Formats: sequence, structure tokens, C-alpha cells
Amino acid sequence: MRLLLISNSGRPMLWHCLQDIHHFLGSVRRVGYITAARLDDEEARFKTAAEALVQAGITAEHFRVDDALPARLKQAEAVFVGGGNSFALLQRLRDSGMLALLAERVRGGMPYIGTSAGSNIAGPNILATNDWNVVGTARFDAMNLVPWTINPHYQESDPAMAPGSETRDQRIGEYLAVNSNPVLGIEEQTAVRVENQSAIVVGSGRAKLFLRGRAPRWLKAGEAVPLMALEPA
Amino acid sequence: MRLLLISNSGRPMLWHCLQDIHHFLGSVRRVGYITAARLDDEEARFKTAAEALVQAGITAEHFRVDDALPARLKQAEAVFVGGGNSFALLQRLRDSGMLALLAERVRGGMPYIGTSAGSNIAGPNILATNDWNVVGTARFDAMNLVPWTINPHYQESDPAMAPGSETRDQRIGEYLAVNSNPVLGIEEQTAVRVENQSAIVVGSGRAKLFLRGRAPRWLKAGEAVPLMALEPA
Repeated sequence: MRLLLISNSGRPMLWHCLQDIHHFLGSVRRVGYITAARLDDEEARFKTAAEALVQAGITAEHFRVDDALPARLKQAEAVFVGGGNSFALLQRLRDSGMLALLAERVRGGMPYIGTSAGSNIAGPNILATNDWNVVGTARFDAMNLVPWTINPHYQESDPAMAPGSETRDQRIGEYLAVNSNPVLGIEEQTAVRVENQSAIVVGSGRAKLFLRGRAPRWLKAGEAVPLMALEPA
Repeated sequence: MRLLLISNSGRPMLWHCLQDIHHFLGSVRRVGYITAARLDDEEARFKTAAEALVQAGITAEHFRVDDALPARLKQAEAVFVGGGNSFALLQRLRDSGMLALLAERVRGGMPYIGTSAGSNIAGPNILATNDWNVVGTARFDAMNLVPWTINPHYQESDPAMAPGSETRDQRIGEYLAVNSNPVLGIEEQTAVRVENQSAIVVGSGRAKLFLRGRAPRWLKAGEAVPLMALEPA
């Protein structure tokens, strides 16, 4: 499996990760770009993304969730799932039957790039997303391609957070009080590149691994993220 | 119906709303305090809350979700549902059958006080909570005592928010793209007091009403929050 799981796409879109995307894709120069996470204008988002990708020599094709998608997914050289609302994305891909097909293609070796919501759905579930479940979807299990539930846009401290509100780490602590699999916080301008049975942090920020019953651990660029669940301490 | 829906409890706990609570309760001096939103130590949270309430002359009794709760709810003079994780709270109250019983008592006139998660469950659903659904609950409809889906800890701008992350208003916009009922953001140190078929903002902050297809509207202390769904503009 080959995955590039990016925390965000930034502004201008994708500027911080264009090189990583270019290197990750190798000789592949064409990606199917899925905008199903958007609850606003999918066409506008695709256009912005395609214009950014062209700078890295990559041609993006808009993969809408429609009757043509199964055939397009089967033939795609690589798929890029953009950010937006993780719950809407998961629901639309599941309801259309495309979630299983996409996971199958990635398991079969097709390169997968995700930003934000697109990274979230690569994990076992999306229960550590920052998004709101505005679509009221009732299933949260995702593609389970990596063992960590992902928290994109991770930041340790959030000084402007409302004083009575939970911190990010408290929320992750709540997750681990109920669930036993790890959570991976990924800072902005940072991604995790998975290939050859290893996962490496890339980009200018860090990732932070949260395991139940252990102190969280920062992982810098170049460091490996454990792909197997670790024994409890 | 009589409800006091508080955005947060603050630190020291409840300091900013003790007077409002005191006035709201009138001659009632005993509340059943529900800690089911906590995924950490429910006993510790109850102790802190009870110590705060005693300053307002109020005796709190710890209402745990157990076999004794139905009888206690039926006899309670008033109920106070504290903050924590809205999804855990809703799930525990629903699974125990206590959500319907609580709503029935409030509809029958028993005063209800909620902070944060406790305010969220008074709305038609909890899909505008800031919390994460770490328990993976699959039902989001709540007591529907007020027509607004509530966003506690509301803040218009969040300068420390990760740059690629959605703002609060964008999230509420996503909610309204999919759902037609209003959203009420309630700032810290602010509450909405519902009684005699009216809802009034109280406290030192403001509330902000979001209606689909309209510009949001700020409501200051003393202003009324519409209890009926308004006609679309």
C-alpha cells in the first residue's frame, strides 16, 4: 500500500506539500480528485485543486460521486481525496458503494493521497476528526488502511480556545478513554507517507502519537510512525 | 417549560452564572445533578459542582445513571445536567431510558438547568456541538425542548485556529447547508433563559442566531430568541 496522508492543504492550496505529492506519485502524472467532502461548491474546489496540482506537473480529473465513478476508480492510476467535512465524505462514499472499492484499489497498490477529511477516512474510523457531523451519519468506521484514528490540523495548544471548552488533548484523552486504538495528531504542513510497510512523517511540522495508557510521543520529519498496535505499557 | 441553558460553567466552576441559577430556581433549593457527560471522574466533577452551588444556597444531589435514577427523576424538584461530552451524555441518557423521562418532566414544568453538553441535549439534536463523538453513538436527536441546535462556547473568531481548519461560522454554515432548523451560538458567560413561552439571553456575553438563508443575528442580554421557526427570508 502507498498512502500520503496530509494534514491540510493550506493557502494557497497545497503549496506546502506539492513537492511531497510530486515525489510520492513518482512516474504517475494523473490523479482522480474526489471532492465529495465539500458541502459547498465541489466544482470550484476541484478547479482550485487542479490549478495547484498542475504546478507539480500533475493532471487532475474530477471524480464526482456519480454513475461513472466505479469505472473511473477501477482505472485510476492514483486517487486524491480532498478535504472538507469528513462525515459527509464518509457517508457519500459509503452510500455509493465507493468506499469499499476505493479501499480495495489502495490495498491493491494504487497510490492514495488524502488531505484532512481525505486523510481521516484512511484510518479505522473518523471519530477524532475536528469536523461536525452535520449530515447526521450514523456509521463512523472508515477504510482502516492505517491503524491510527487521525486528527488532522493537530495543535497542542490553542490559546484562543474558549476557556470552558476542551483542549485537543483532552478530546483525544476522551477518545482513548472509550477506544483502544491509537490516535495520530498531524500538525499543519505535515503528512505521513506510508509505503513498503513503513510510515514516515514528512513536511515541516510534526505528528503526535497517542496510545492508551502512555504519554503521547512527538514524531518529527523522518521519524517512523508505528504501523502495528503497540503493547500497552 | 422552564430552562436555563448555559454555554459553559467556567473556572472557578459556575462562578459567572451562580446568580442566574439562583434567580432561575426561585424557591427551589435542591437540584439533582447529572454527571453522565463526563468520561473522566464523575464523582470528582459532582463534588466540584456541588461546592459551587452551595454558594448560591443550593443543595445538589448526585444523580448517577443507575437503577435508582427513574425514581429520583420522578421526584426531583429541579435537574441540572453538567457539561462534558455531549455524545456520551446523549447515549447514556437514551440507553437508560432516562432521556424521554427527563424531557417529560421538563415539559411538565420541572426547572431544567444545563451547561454546555447539558444545554446541547435540550435542542432538537446535538449536531452543532464542539465535542467529538468518541463513543461512536449513532443517534443525535435530543430532547427537542427548544427549536435551536445549540453551539455552546460560541466564538466568532478564533485567531489561533489552524489555518486550514474550518471556522465556527463555516461549520454552522455546513450544518445549515444540510439541515433547516436554526442554530444558536451561545458565547461564554452567557445563557438562554426559557419560561412563559419566551426565551431571553442572560449573562455578560451574547447569543448569535443562524437561520438558513439569512445573515446571522447577534442577540444581547435581555433580547428575545425566537422560539418559533421563522419564515425563510
